[in-house]
Amino acid sequence: MQKYLGVSVLVVGVSLAAMGLFPSNTGRVAAQTQQSTAVFDSNGKMKLPTGYRAWIFVGAPLTPNGLNNGKANFPEYHHVYIEKKNVDAYLATGSFPEGTVIVKELTRVLNPTFPDGSRKEPSGRGYFNGEYNGIDVTVKDSKRFAATNGWGFFTFGHHPLPYDESATEQPVTVCAGCHIANVAATDMTWVQFYPLLRDKKGY
Amino acid sequence: MQKYLGVSVLVVGVSLAAMGLFPSNTGRVAAQTQQSTAVFDSNGKMKLPTGYRAWIFVGAPLTPNGLNNGKANFPEYHHVYIEKKNVDAYLATGSFPEGTVIVKELTRVLNPTFPDGSRKEPSGRGYFNGEYNGIDVTVKDSKRFAATNGWGFFTFGHHPLPYDESATEQPVTVCAGCHIANVAATDMTWVQFYPLLRDKKGY
Repeated sequence: MQKYLGVSVLVVGVSLAAMGLFPSNTGRVAAQTQQSTAVFDSNGKMKLPTGYRAWIFVGAPLTPNGLNNGKANFPEYHHVYIEKKNVDAYLATGSFPEGTVIVKELTRVLNPTFPDGSRKEPSGRGYFNGEYNGIDVTVKDSKRFAATNGWGFFTFGHHPLPYDESATEQPVTVCAGCHIANVAATDMTWVQFYPLLRDKKGY
Repeated sequence: MQKYLGVSVLVVGVSLAAMGLFPSNTGRVAAQTQQSTAVFDSNGKMKLPTGYRAWIFVGAPLTPNGLNNGKANFPEYHHVYIEKKNVDAYLATGSFPEGTVIVKELTRVLNPTFPDGSRKEPSGRGYFNGEYNGIDVTVKDSKRFAATNGWGFFTFGHHPLPYDESATEQPVTVCAGCHIANVAATDMTWVQFYPLLRDKKGY
């Protein structure tokens, strides 16, 4: 409810301003618009995001170990989530607002029985979501992460729940380098794998 | 915004009721709670749902043609979406409220280059989401669909956008039969493939 309470407070504030009971404060409105879900401590460590499974899902790339000589960088499903306000901004402008958080949550491939990692189910042979197994996060903050095209990369562990409570920024070679080399033109994001962002058909 | 406007109207109504300006009307509140996104015409055809890509994503089963002798029933990613109020109800009670709509949208596997349907990308060899390619929908209505455990099954086409505008209920042999045989115990839903519903870890 936090977001809608925020909107309600804003609406009440604007209404009171219109009634002459409160001074108008456009600075406060602008700050709210740029509000980020990302929280950093005084050492620059990022706090584990919450609530992201209720954000907008944009895609599910899957690179199983069985197709990568047992050594995939991400042997799990990647479920990628972005808050709706930031998806909407990307669709309107081609770039994400400051403060945007993109969550990539990993889920294991459910109990593989074939060498490629697949299994048989009534719907056919293929891949199905197993347990949650990790979360990587990227945050847009052009000042804080100026050295990596304005995005910082964090991992809260590649393991089952609970995930790590906080994380330090990953070195360029681990995450940002691959984004800079491949997706700098699409605001550092793999939109070519995300139909909602790539094909722009709306919700 | 429709939902939040609805909530606002409700809040205003309740406030006015509390102020003695309006009679309290708990019947109306109950009716709202059971409101369904499903719309049927006078012939029982269901109207194509809208807005579902902003619903809660629960899982992405994938049964590519390449692993099913070229004849998978669903050769695409299945992206499964459910409205949050109905996910919450399932998590609380183990069954979905009357009126629940579950959307399974299909996306093609992006440009396969290997016989199993996979391709190579910087993150490894695997599967990535291509274009939208169809939508199947199931609706819980215990009276309307009493013959199939209270759920009706519809397809709005397995093809690129635009999808069909309306759909007739599918015969038992096409959809419901497999659900009755395999997932009757989990309210006709494949929760074993949906971590959010299966593992109950919340958002």
